[in-house]
Amino acid sequence: MISVEEAQRRITSAFAPIDTEAMDLAHLAGRVLAEDVRAKYDQPPFAASAMDGFAVRLSDSDAPRRVIGTAPAGHPFVGYVASGEAVRIFTGGMIPDGADAIVIQEEVDRTGDTIHFNASALHHDYIRPAGLDFKKGDVLLPAGKRINSRDMALLAAGDVTQMKVRRRPRVAIASIGDELSAPGAPRKPGGITASTGYGLSAMVTTWGGAPCDFGILPDTAQEIATIADANAELIVTLGGASVGDHDLVQKALGNTDFVLDFWKVAMKPGKPLLFGRLGDTPILGLPGNPVSALVCAILFLRPAIDAMLGTAQHSCSLSQKLRCGCHTTTARLKGDLPANNDRQAYLRARLSHVDGEVWAEPFLAQDSSMLSVLAEADALILRKPQAAAASTGDRLEIIPLDGC
Amino acid sequence: MISVEEAQRRITSAFAPIDTEAMDLAHLAGRVLAEDVRAKYDQPPFAASAMDGFAVRLSDSDAPRRVIGTAPAGHPFVGYVASGEAVRIFTGGMIPDGADAIVIQEEVDRTGDTIHFNASALHHDYIRPAGLDFKKGDVLLPAGKRINSRDMALLAAGDVTQMKVRRRPRVAIASIGDELSAPGAPRKPGGITASTGYGLSAMVTTWGGAPCDFGILPDTAQEIATIADANAELIVTLGGASVGDHDLVQKALGNTDFVLDFWKVAMKPGKPLLFGRLGDTPILGLPGNPVSALVCAILFLRPAIDAMLGTAQHSCSLSQKLRCGCHTTTARLKGDLPANNDRQAYLRARLSHVDGEVWAEPFLAQDSSMLSVLAEADALILRKPQAAAASTGDRLEIIPLDGC
Repeated sequence: MISVEEAQRRITSAFAPIDTEAMDLAHLAGRVLAEDVRAKYDQPPFAASAMDGFAVRLSDSDAPRRVIGTAPAGHPFVGYVASGEAVRIFTGGMIPDGADAIVIQEEVDRTGDTIHFNASALHHDYIRPAGLDFKKGDVLLPAGKRINSRDMALLAAGDVTQMKVRRRPRVAIASIGDELSAPGAPRKPGGITASTGYGLSAMVTTWGGAPCDFGILPDTAQEIATIADANAELIVTLGGASVGDHDLVQKALGNTDFVLDFWKVAMKPGKPLLFGRLGDTPILGLPGNPVSALVCAILFLRPAIDAMLGTAQHSCSLSQKLRCGCHTTTARLKGDLPANNDRQAYLRARLSHVDGEVWAEPFLAQDSSMLSVLAEADALILRKPQAAAASTGDRLEIIPLDGC
Repeated sequence: MISVEEAQRRITSAFAPIDTEAMDLAHLAGRVLAEDVRAKYDQPPFAASAMDGFAVRLSDSDAPRRVIGTAPAGHPFVGYVASGEAVRIFTGGMIPDGADAIVIQEEVDRTGDTIHFNASALHHDYIRPAGLDFKKGDVLLPAGKRINSRDMALLAAGDVTQMKVRRRPRVAIASIGDELSAPGAPRKPGGITASTGYGLSAMVTTWGGAPCDFGILPDTAQEIATIADANAELIVTLGGASVGDHDLVQKALGNTDFVLDFWKVAMKPGKPLLFGRLGDTPILGLPGNPVSALVCAILFLRPAIDAMLGTAQHSCSLSQKLRCGCHTTTARLKGDLPANNDRQAYLRARLSHVDGEVWAEPFLAQDSSMLSVLAEADALILRKPQAAAASTGDRLEIIPLDGC
């Protein structure tokens, strides 16, 4: 058995960034940039007022001014502000030639066309210089960035309407097992409902891939081999547990050119993880137990998709790392945990917030068949192999389950 | 000016849960349940083996057993395990009648049809009783729950294929301002690109609403009044700053039956926030500065959508609360902050992770026009009105910007 870290390393090194496609700004949310995106204009494109008030010349000091015009946003004043003159201006309005400060309207008394300043006026120029936010040619967002809502506003401000993004990697998903039937369909004797595929498809979509669900395949070499024909960047199998052992899974794939990279990882849940290649296509065999499969997807499938999207190029922010599960954070343990054995453990836990600190309480039931516990969990507590016993208040590593 | 909390209270109390629609399991991700969802079967539906091994009778003690059959998952053994007998069984296989324990295969030596146990065998029964995960009729997920990937697997396991969800509330978005042009279109003199609408539409989608972008409307009463015809649950306007003051915004809406609830909130960024009703439709007027508008969307629009989706009924988990911005967490301040004035402040900040603690460092540039800073931020530091000066190491409230 290899370690979780070794398995992650072998899996991610099997993938390179996928090809790109041009994408319109309106459809960019959640996509990953394949190139640095640069601003096409300065923002603001001209010196602009940050407030509603009057554009004046600072050198006039606090003498009264004659208002000679108006400059709302989008309607520049055509003319020159000379000594003793002012232009009524609004937030976003272009600073007129000659003016070098804004006096805000709260600090002005206006009588007809004349304005007088309060004592506190002119302590600030309230001008946003051209290019304050960014300059033409600046990199607004780097290659490898996953686009969120705020990024979309930034790109629009930079007048960027189309950019290259990574294609969504196609992930073929097949649930294997004679015991399985689709939800709502009649159950087989001794059978259960195939459930993991629904969760996995949703995760793949969230992580930026394009899931293609093959549904349920019976435990026969012939059926299992059909997934080799999937036009996918990655094949994911769920279960196949009834085959009983690894040699039979290999045998099932024997007529195809299946090459095993590794089988079994020193972890719990999720030991029977398989990774290899079916012809040119990487294949990731997840365990049959739903909780094992979904935890393994977070630990191994998500980084594989990230590697295809090229997000590893981008040093993502802490909050993004927390969301995507590629980074752990810490919490204080609520309860006691025994020393761990030689398998790295991922305990389902509930988070709570006490006095500004996050506490993680492991669920009593950690059986890898219990989806109800996984659904209720907020985080996984990570227990390294041979970790010492831990008790209430100890600080432990956790993987938040947000976005899964 | 009213407080942020008073504004949030007035806004959320203007909305009730929206009507429902039936939704298929496959399309459920991100939707909000309108009813408790109950399991249609026990899971597992029968006592099942948790391991690969042999089903035996405990009362036989450690005597050798004769293997009389096989029970892979989905292929129950038809027969009875009598004294001295065993059935080869695999994970998920139905426990045969007569058997009451599993001996795992690692603890067995098999010679032909006879198995002998190692010393350590029979210390655990390795049986998952029927209904271990959940029982028929159990509430799998409560009304008000926003469905994530793990929830989808749980619902599939419970054989639930269709459920009632809240309809996505329609949010009409109009950018107002003579100075605006669409990204990629020729710019007006003194004009800028309309950017906030792109970010806002993406946020509305993320939060579970259906955005309908009216694009750019000029600053005229006639044009602004057209949004009254939007068939929406909520109208959101962006800007209108060049109109200069609130009376003119009201005048612009004057031909319609516009009723103001409040205008101006004691906050920064975002003071000029408007809320009211245009006929039967609530209208939220966000400020023109992009950062102000997007921060106000997080603080006021998100809770409005939540109120329509009925998510407030559900006591969401800590991690969900952190994601949706409806909950603050804390971080240690990196840097110094002066005492605050009478406006509640939301400072854009970067998070980092040191020795198991989260640190928040405010950006030097906090101008409300700077989208580049908002895009780079991981969180908003919340500063209450009149908050005392703070320095490095102080624990402050933050709102993480994940999912925005």
